[in-house]
Amino acid sequence: MYKGKLITFEGIDGSGKTTQINLLKEYLLNIGRDIVVLREPGGTSVGEKIRNILLDKKNKIVPTAEALLYAASRAELVKEVIIPSLNNGKIVILDRFVDSSIVYQGYARGIGVKAVEEINNIAIAGLVPDLTIYLDIKPKDTIKRIDRRKDKDRLEMEDLEFHEKVYEGYKQLIKSRPDRYLVIDATHDIDYIQKSIVKEISKII
Amino acid sequence: MYKGKLITFEGIDGSGKTTQINLLKEYLLNIGRDIVVLREPGGTSVGEKIRNILLDKKNKIVPTAEALLYAASRAELVKEVIIPSLNNGKIVILDRFVDSSIVYQGYARGIGVKAVEEINNIAIAGLVPDLTIYLDIKPKDTIKRIDRRKDKDRLEMEDLEFHEKVYEGYKQLIKSRPDRYLVIDATHDIDYIQKSIVKEISKII
Repeated sequence: MYKGKLITFEGIDGSGKTTQINLLKEYLLNIGRDIVVLREPGGTSVGEKIRNILLDKKNKIVPTAEALLYAASRAELVKEVIIPSLNNGKIVILDRFVDSSIVYQGYARGIGVKAVEEINNIAIAGLVPDLTIYLDIKPKDTIKRIDRRKDKDRLEMEDLEFHEKVYEGYKQLIKSRPDRYLVIDATHDIDYIQKSIVKEISKII
Repeated sequence: MYKGKLITFEGIDGSGKTTQINLLKEYLLNIGRDIVVLREPGGTSVGEKIRNILLDKKNKIVPTAEALLYAASRAELVKEVIIPSLNNGKIVILDRFVDSSIVYQGYARGIGVKAVEEINNIAIAGLVPDLTIYLDIKPKDTIKRIDRRKDKDRLEMEDLEFHEKVYEGYKQLIKSRPDRYLVIDATHDIDYIQKSIVKEISKII
């Protein structure tokens, strides 16, 4: 449908998404591919304003409103950046997409998976990633990694139960539609994981 | 279900909502009722920030994102202000609510009525007005009124076709669920309209 490809990364905090996205970016640039790397929320003029609302720790946001704000930012990003990039033949790499909303807001925050799916179906107008790379690691195994971070989010860190819910949410989601996902055991070393990702991506680009 | 009552006003721009809301407010205060008058978007700390995004004319907003932002502001207002007020036995008067989103964004802007309904069902968690007062007047009959306004919105003013779509949208909406609406011919004089509103409201408060 589009000339380009949409590749999304999913996984709990500390699963290694950022590291792998950077390595993949380097690899694709080295082989001369035209890429766009994006992170939500934000990425458009209106989206950045929404991002400010969502990330300002002073704001106490109703969970449903939070899901709607993420979807609004996503609607902007899809229409203004992602679809034009795909039409131009670019490889778009996204650090989190709809799956994260389904798992974090729908599943773990308890708004309901169906509600979050409905909101997002409207926001993204049927856009489905060509490949979603899921870095599979249990919350208890990421704690050491997150502990090393300077900018760790204490609130999230303290709540292992929340991360367990997110992890369970991903499991359920992937079970319900396995085709789109490349599930990688993220306890492997960085190099092994990168090679697995490159191998799979080479099949579609 | 709630001790209070939720009364919403709907109608095209220039239909006389503001005038009638002010008269109703005065009437209810005179008979000693505890009331809250609200206008969307806004009304909460997060909602005001969303309002700034929506009303800033410099922002070019994707229609779907616009609908999601209105719904996010509404989710905040319902949870933080409207439901607590209803629980306290107050009469809540709203200048526009979900119906406006359905008609303006779903119908007239073409996002689709079903999509806007789905988004809003999630935002308002099943809250339905006890009474909706629809001030029924054709767009061509409001032009003289709007022309008198100092702060008229030129963009909207110029586009009679858009207002015709909104008017048609309201007609379809009311036909699909007539029970909740008090339809008043808004070409009548102000006093006659106010008496009709008071008569109907007296039945439910």
